[in-house]
Amino acid sequence: MSSGLGCDGLPSNWGRWGAGDELGTLNLVTDEVRARAVAEARTGRWVSLAMPVDPASMLGGPFAPPAPASPPVQQAMLYTGIPPMGMSEVLVVTPHHPGLTHLDAPAHMQVDGLVYPGRPLTEAVTPAGVEHGSTTAFADGVLTRGVLLDLAPGGRLPSAHPIAGADLDAAERRAGVRVEPGDALVVRGGWAFSWDGGEPTPGMTVDAVAWMQRRDVCLYAGDIGDAFPPMDPQVPMPLHQVGLTRLGMPLIDGAQVEDLASTFAELGRYAFLLTVAPPRLRGATGVPVNPFAIF
Amino acid sequence: MSSGLGCDGLPSNWGRWGAGDELGTLNLVTDEVRARAVAEARTGRWVSLAMPVDPASMLGGPFAPPAPASPPVQQAMLYTGIPPMGMSEVLVVTPHHPGLTHLDAPAHMQVDGLVYPGRPLTEAVTPAGVEHGSTTAFADGVLTRGVLLDLAPGGRLPSAHPIAGADLDAAERRAGVRVEPGDALVVRGGWAFSWDGGEPTPGMTVDAVAWMQRRDVCLYAGDIGDAFPPMDPQVPMPLHQVGLTRLGMPLIDGAQVEDLASTFAELGRYAFLLTVAPPRLRGATGVPVNPFAIF
Amino acid sequence: MSSGLGCDGLPSNWGRWGAGDELGTLNLVTDEVRARAVAEARTGRWVSLAMPVDPASMLGGPFAPPAPASPPVQQAMLYTGIPPMGMSEVLVVTPHHPGLTHLDAPAHMQVDGLVYPGRPLTEAVTPAGVEHGSTTAFADGVLTRGVLLDLAPGGRLPSAHPIAGADLDAAERRAGVRVEPGDALVVRGGWAFSWDGGEPTPGMTVDAVAWMQRRDVCLYAGDIGDAFPPMDPQVPMPLHQVGLTRLGMPLIDGAQVEDLASTFAELGRYAFLLTVAPPRLRGATGVPVNPFAIF
Amino acid sequence: MSSGLGCDGLPSNWGRWGAGDELGTLNLVTDEVRARAVAEARTGRWVSLAMPVDPASMLGGPFAPPAPASPPVQQAMLYTGIPPMGMSEVLVVTPHHPGLTHLDAPAHMQVDGLVYPGRPLTEAVTPAGVEHGSTTAFADGVLTRGVLLDLAPGGRLPSAHPIAGADLDAAERRAGVRVEPGDALVVRGGWAFSWDGGEPTPGMTVDAVAWMQRRDVCLYAGDIGDAFPPMDPQVPMPLHQVGLTRLGMPLIDGAQVEDLASTFAELGRYAFLLTVAPPRLRGATGVPVNPFAIF
Repeated sequence: MSSGLGCDGLPSNWGRWGAGDELGTLNLVTDEVRARAVAEARTGRWVSLAMPVDPASMLGGPFAPPAPASPPVQQAMLYTGIPPMGMSEVLVVTPHHPGLTHLDAPAHMQVDGLVYPGRPLTEAVTPAGVEHGSTTAFADGVLTRGVLLDLAPGGRLPSAHPIAGADLDAAERRAGVRVEPGDALVVRGGWAFSWDGGEPTPGMTVDAVAWMQRRDVCLYAGDIGDAFPPMDPQVPMPLHQVGLTRLGMPLIDGAQVEDLASTFAELGRYAFLLTVAPPRLRGATGVPVNPFAIF
Repeated sequence: MSSGLGCDGLPSNWGRWGAGDELGTLNLVTDEVRARAVAEARTGRWVSLAMPVDPASMLGGPFAPPAPASPPVQQAMLYTGIPPMGMSEVLVVTPHHPGLTHLDAPAHMQVDGLVYPGRPLTEAVTPAGVEHGSTTAFADGVLTRGVLLDLAPGGRLPSAHPIAGADLDAAERRAGVRVEPGDALVVRGGWAFSWDGGEPTPGMTVDAVAWMQRRDVCLYAGDIGDAFPPMDPQVPMPLHQVGLTRLGMPLIDGAQVEDLASTFAELGRYAFLLTVAPPRLRGATGVPVNPFAIF
Repeated sequence: MSSGLGCDGLPSNWGRWGAGDELGTLNLVTDEVRARAVAEARTGRWVSLAMPVDPASMLGGPFAPPAPASPPVQQAMLYTGIPPMGMSEVLVVTPHHPGLTHLDAPAHMQVDGLVYPGRPLTEAVTPAGVEHGSTTAFADGVLTRGVLLDLAPGGRLPSAHPIAGADLDAAERRAGVRVEPGDALVVRGGWAFSWDGGEPTPGMTVDAVAWMQRRDVCLYAGDIGDAFPPMDPQVPMPLHQVGLTRLGMPLIDGAQVEDLASTFAELGRYAFLLTVAPPRLRGATGVPVNPFAIF
Repeated sequence: MSSGLGCDGLPSNWGRWGAGDELGTLNLVTDEVRARAVAEARTGRWVSLAMPVDPASMLGGPFAPPAPASPPVQQAMLYTGIPPMGMSEVLVVTPHHPGLTHLDAPAHMQVDGLVYPGRPLTEAVTPAGVEHGSTTAFADGVLTRGVLLDLAPGGRLPSAHPIAGADLDAAERRAGVRVEPGDALVVRGGWAFSWDGGEPTPGMTVDAVAWMQRRDVCLYAGDIGDAFPPMDPQVPMPLHQVGLTRLGMPLIDGAQVEDLASTFAELGRYAFLLTVAPPRLRGATGVPVNPFAIF
């Protein structure tokens, strides 16, 4: 039963895979799905779905290289003697930064004090660490088929556009592709992360997330996600509050899909083998990731 | 010319791909190699070659969960209100930590003040950042064929064993597999990272690194690497000082290959599609990584 | 009115200096108190009341110097060229660590969701920072008279000893000194911070904190504080939950008072000029500090 | 012999207090100097010589409070449950940041590979830590007499003004005060730290540092220091390269002296009791500090 609703009328997978489940929609990635996925890898060509990131130097003052405010990754290059034994560094990483392509684990988001699949946040996240819904369940990584739906081929969506299921249907028709159960959905809206971000962004509606539930999408990645500022006062963050928390569908925030879109324009194909291999870090609520689209 | 020697008589690729090259042996991964690699991916089954890591809490004192000394990853779970808006964290990462599976970039290691391919360290690494030989060239990731050579099937190498080319030849014969140009070499010695590490480890000799050069290995990953303590006073770290610096061969330190070994024992195959997808971080000398062996 | 009780029957200063007060008992340090304090400084001899701290190296692995688990201060020595332009570092500090002498600001501790003087925690501490009760009010530092009460001259208090007001009275009589309004109280119990900390420590009771209120103590510093494990299930942390939260009395946790005690044994004086000069950091809930006892 | 020159003709104290000395000019603070210092403390009024600092939040993204680029102090407020057990944080500190009032230890600066008093940098600072010339020798703090020399009363020095000994003499005459052996010299130039810092700053010349040597100044603090950009190609940083390295005179960079200047304008006094009490951190090359001027 893939189109359940919670008692609040919103799409929900709570209970679908048991009360202790941590995999969420990754349960949909069966052997059959994986076999379908690797069948898309024919030449070994691939593109990255991550934004490149330049670390900011932790040196301060007139001798330090310029750095942006609130950088996602900072670097302290370590002194190890003259001549140095080897160059190494300490990195300070803010995984959920919008300028860093990252994977959200279910414990990242709570609704009314509950995280997927209905577990109290206070049990899931304690001062001792994340006991439930962390990256632990994802740390092995993800391998499945990915499908790109380009919502604005060659351009970008209008500012503050509310994306509905019908937009996803239309993109499928344009591309001649269909999102099957267990596929990862990769969305292009033509909006890249920007430091100033003055303009209201487009974003997914509950209707679009319901579409993802109907299609049994296992993972979402996009250059757009929830609208900022929010558009729906009832559900300000549909992807996070419904997709991640109610469906247990992991999210890749801040995907970079321009290279993917241009490759597909060239090849005329919209499906690929997707690998998501975060550093094998357990117990986090998010982790930077470099998804590969292999075809 | 794949078997060049430097003027010091040690294997060297300096100059092979030009004076400004940053890819090193990754230049060997041609379209043909990638096509051979994806041909190994038949079912979509995969294993991770990374050690799982539990972050240490940055809380201190009697209320803090116990943590090891010098952990590779530390986590500060962020307060974001009551109830929290969302759970997120700051991570402090020491990429070159032996307890963290990571990729070494050429600028990590210098010999006589030079990094691959003969560039002065002082030009390659400056207070403003790593200008040459950083992870920038690798940030897109690596996709190639991987081959596992198990040097001690079902057990482990003797302590302080010096691994020679002949050991690699013998492992090939046992497995009925051959490392081809552009392949990644994955080695199992049966020695996992340990916090106490009192026992002298086995390690690669210059002879073994010369073997890798002859075979045009594009990348090395192993649960063992350079012996610690060093065995050869002339070249205390053959993999790092010859493999990384002179050959420009990226290294994955601290690979976890037990899962790979048992999978292969089950399937009777020793080659696979290898993907290495570090966070797309430029300008670092090392970065944590979760390599996938897909078959 | 310096001996108020809250509606829960516990000592309280809520409302004594207004609803928006952030100084708490530091309001008691008048010009007259300060004049009395500097009169104690006659020779310029001084001792530090801070534990010395060695930073732990953030380098990891076999080349790194050994470090304790969960250190209070970590150091990444920065690479700034060959030869280096100048040596500098990044420090990672956990201010509330029991191995680091530090000053607690009122926002550090809440009781039933309220911080001194009855402000909701959710207003005092927000994701944007600490709006009320932070170190901002203390960042200029403290200058007052300090008085040492040695509860176990030449030895140490018994394990798990509950310290009552009568213990403080007895120490005053022994030393021939009297804690006056606006004085800082420095307590010696003979228990230093220890990493293993297996033994139950002595600690202050509500009765002792009520004594501090009656005497109008402006600040508490001690080598002991709240008992760990707690002794009183109703009020597990009397100094923090009553002294800091209800009285608004700043606490210096982890003071080192052995040097002070031996100096006083030598001089036969138990009062001194106390200066507390934390880094002038606003908006924190705690900050490392090096109090001076000048006489 | 307080006016020695090194073999390069520059003022030097190398050898004056032995080859292993780490205190440098702090050796000049005798019991007599300290007695003179506390005699200046008459009322207990005091001002801080530190710039207030607001930590930058380590949260990133649209929900995070705005932060400057390259902040001197960052703060990660820690999640410790709902309701939180207590509020605490991790601080990331860059001690030598020009926006943070801090104390430089001798090992901060080398000249021709040597640190005060002629020790090779490679012995003083090793991968294992700072073995010589660190904050260890200063960690107890400093107590001495301070004298303010205001070089531009009521205004500020011209841009790029080279400060000579004659400027210091003139300021003494204006104020009717004299810097005695063992005093700390506090200088006001009317230039506060600024983030943009486009304008060339005034700065100390070798002539001024020679004046400090003649007067046996034990410590320098100022709102100005070395000119930026440098004015003297031979000695681009006279205070750091001569004062700190050759004289062993600790420097307080980025002092805030406006409050001190206005207090003295009010009182007509230019000398005071100075306390410098850095967190008692050993093994660092710099540490934030909040100097007190007590009078």
